[in-house]
Amino acid sequence: MIRFKNGRVMTMDGGCAVEEKEVWVEGDRIVFVGVPDDEKLKAARFEREIDLDGDLLMPAFKNAHTHSAMTFLRSYADDLPLQDWLFKQVFPMEAKLTGEDVYWFARVAILEYLTSGVSSCFDMYFELDDYVKANTDSGFRTVLCGAVSGERENAAVLEERYLKYNGRHPLISMQLGFHAEYTASLGLMEDIAALAEKYKAPVSMHSSETAQEVHDCRERYGRTPTRLFDDLGLYNYGGAAFHCVHMSKEDEMILAKRGVWAVTNPCSNAKLISGTAPIAQMDSMGINLAIGTDGPASNNALDMFREMYLLSVEQKLHELDAGAMQPERVLEMACCGSARAMGLDDCDCIAVGKQADLTVIDLQRPNMQPINNIVKNIVYSGSKENVRLTMVAGRVLYERGQFFVGEDVKRIYARANELCEDIKRR
Amino acid sequence: MIRFKNGRVMTMDGGCAVEEKEVWVEGDRIVFVGVPDDEKLKAARFEREIDLDGDLLMPAFKNAHTHSAMTFLRSYADDLPLQDWLFKQVFPMEAKLTGEDVYWFARVAILEYLTSGVSSCFDMYFELDDYVKANTDSGFRTVLCGAVSGERENAAVLEERYLKYNGRHPLISMQLGFHAEYTASLGLMEDIAALAEKYKAPVSMHSSETAQEVHDCRERYGRTPTRLFDDLGLYNYGGAAFHCVHMSKEDEMILAKRGVWAVTNPCSNAKLISGTAPIAQMDSMGINLAIGTDGPASNNALDMFREMYLLSVEQKLHELDAGAMQPERVLEMACCGSARAMGLDDCDCIAVGKQADLTVIDLQRPNMQPINNIVKNIVYSGSKENVRLTMVAGRVLYERGQFFVGEDVKRIYARANELCEDIKRR
Repeated sequence: MIRFKNGRVMTMDGGCAVEEKEVWVEGDRIVFVGVPDDEKLKAARFEREIDLDGDLLMPAFKNAHTHSAMTFLRSYADDLPLQDWLFKQVFPMEAKLTGEDVYWFARVAILEYLTSGVSSCFDMYFELDDYVKANTDSGFRTVLCGAVSGERENAAVLEERYLKYNGRHPLISMQLGFHAEYTASLGLMEDIAALAEKYKAPVSMHSSETAQEVHDCRERYGRTPTRLFDDLGLYNYGGAAFHCVHMSKEDEMILAKRGVWAVTNPCSNAKLISGTAPIAQMDSMGINLAIGTDGPASNNALDMFREMYLLSVEQKLHELDAGAMQPERVLEMACCGSARAMGLDDCDCIAVGKQADLTVIDLQRPNMQPINNIVKNIVYSGSKENVRLTMVAGRVLYERGQFFVGEDVKRIYARANELCEDIKRR
Repeated sequence: MIRFKNGRVMTMDGGCAVEEKEVWVEGDRIVFVGVPDDEKLKAARFEREIDLDGDLLMPAFKNAHTHSAMTFLRSYADDLPLQDWLFKQVFPMEAKLTGEDVYWFARVAILEYLTSGVSSCFDMYFELDDYVKANTDSGFRTVLCGAVSGERENAAVLEERYLKYNGRHPLISMQLGFHAEYTASLGLMEDIAALAEKYKAPVSMHSSETAQEVHDCRERYGRTPTRLFDDLGLYNYGGAAFHCVHMSKEDEMILAKRGVWAVTNPCSNAKLISGTAPIAQMDSMGINLAIGTDGPASNNALDMFREMYLLSVEQKLHELDAGAMQPERVLEMACCGSARAMGLDDCDCIAVGKQADLTVIDLQRPNMQPINNIVKNIVYSGSKENVRLTMVAGRVLYERGQFFVGEDVKRIYARANELCEDIKRR
């Protein structure tokens, strides 16, 4: 058993209260939250006691939208709007990728998630066997998001993967999904809707990321992507819509009605000049909200602190209301909302029986001082320097700058750099 | 002599090229930049050799606008627009501050600057004796900016301070300045213009931060703050205008003509819903540009990486041009531009004879990998976790998470927290 003691705990099991408590972890689960009496302590056998020394234990962040292996394009394809970036830079380079490339590039991303207190990702990519191996070798949790597109694949491939990757490994699951309306045929979307019905399962996809995407969809189908997806039955069992930047009132009402998660990606949307998603307004409508980094080629960091900060200040500017997006709500989105958007209902907060996906925030750094308000400190001032520890499924994978991911970090960097240079020559 | 070896160097002495070189420091100055031959090496006596191990040595960042002691209001006064925030929250709390408070709150801020690779600040506050002591005790460099306002002080006070704090200590200098048009009388501004003439000196102030400020100034004087300051002769010898969010074409032409530095504060301007400064456009007009964090009560972090990132993506969105604000230009603003805006012409780059105000960027962190482009990595992905070392005037004040500032860090935090609670009771 691992004991976290002598610190502060924010369980996020309904609100952002901070209390002096202990948390005990056995195997991959939380087995105790509270102040133990002498008897309980005497009966317990700890393999490790982690002295928090006043620091904060909280649920790890969950990254509800990313493409991890795109680390190879970080600082390579930049300073272009989305459509040029995607079709002229990203797709041609991705066409050269092998499974081995994907494995090493994903491993780099996983290291970075850990430095940001992230314990799991909703990850959309290909070469999934290698992808899964990168995650399980690292001890990292991932939810694969189906990424079929009209050109390469069909719904039968998606179903095959869905059956293959669910229930195979405790750290791995998969959700139905496809890339986007503009890379899928109507037939493919109809077939995926049939899968949703067959498995009573949610479906996730990029949606309404750019004005052009919405415009083109209206030209093709006479309706917005959100309306199209709903009309096709893709949202009958919920799902997650990535980006949601250009939303009509009707779109928002569909998300609210279907319980679809709007997953926002503020950094990527800004850098690719896609725009600012109307998150504060969607929040006021009771729409389910989550946060993701998007991939490292468009962001370029994989940093939940930066996402939370940019989300906060962008919404204030967008609404011309300095009180918009209260920090408690933002933190809840990043920890609990994102977990639920990925179907990880047992990773959303600190409570007995939940998965031990945790992070420790170092409050003994100058950006957290003085301590007037811990939640505001995290959302408005926090950075990766404050991540003291990240635990996934009860295993410490990152602590005080060191990684425990079953591989030498320098070797991961070296392989990624070699393969990166090699791809440019292919 | 201190030797930086076995790494990469970005001198920023004209451009952002990265080369394999050494840098040697003697006392507070850079004495060698290059690849030493055997003879030179044999003749040298090093007190310390720092093995960069492939990491990047570059000029430290300079923070061209802040109010350091406002750490006591971090996460306390939030989520309000500027005028309410300033007059209802900040000014009443600041009225309670003693010199001792200011000393300890500034010491917290200095720690945070060091974690962000910042070596000096253009700092506007009061209780200057204590302020100066906080900086010199820490070994940190600061340029005080005159902060007189109509209610408390007059130009004679400003002149007295200007003479007192210049030439007193190698780490301390002072520039003429006042808080803002809306807190100064016409008489005070005229008197400061006379001082500018007397000392042939630049004058700095907040300017055009909010639409309301510009509107009110037009009501009072029939012209914008920039035009007013120029008409009064305040810009005859240059200066720095903090914020510059709401600028007319004429305002911009005045800054260009007078060589006044537009100092942008993207995080603060967003959080207080002041708006987005037209930096890309001012850049195209050849206006001198610099970056600051503003104070920790409005930002709330003191993090040059966050400023550089937000500046980049906000300008792209604002101009609807994903290629706006090239990262080389942003980095130059943060290192060289900000130094020159503060009058620190001998701290602006790495060259023989310049002050040794340096930082080492840790490239062996996942957010810097793979290494496709180091400048883009820093501006688009960098964070405080990448600051391996910060040197001010030849002294290492921060290295691998540890501080060397002449005081125990836990004591600084403890005093700041005690005084913070005490102020709330006063």
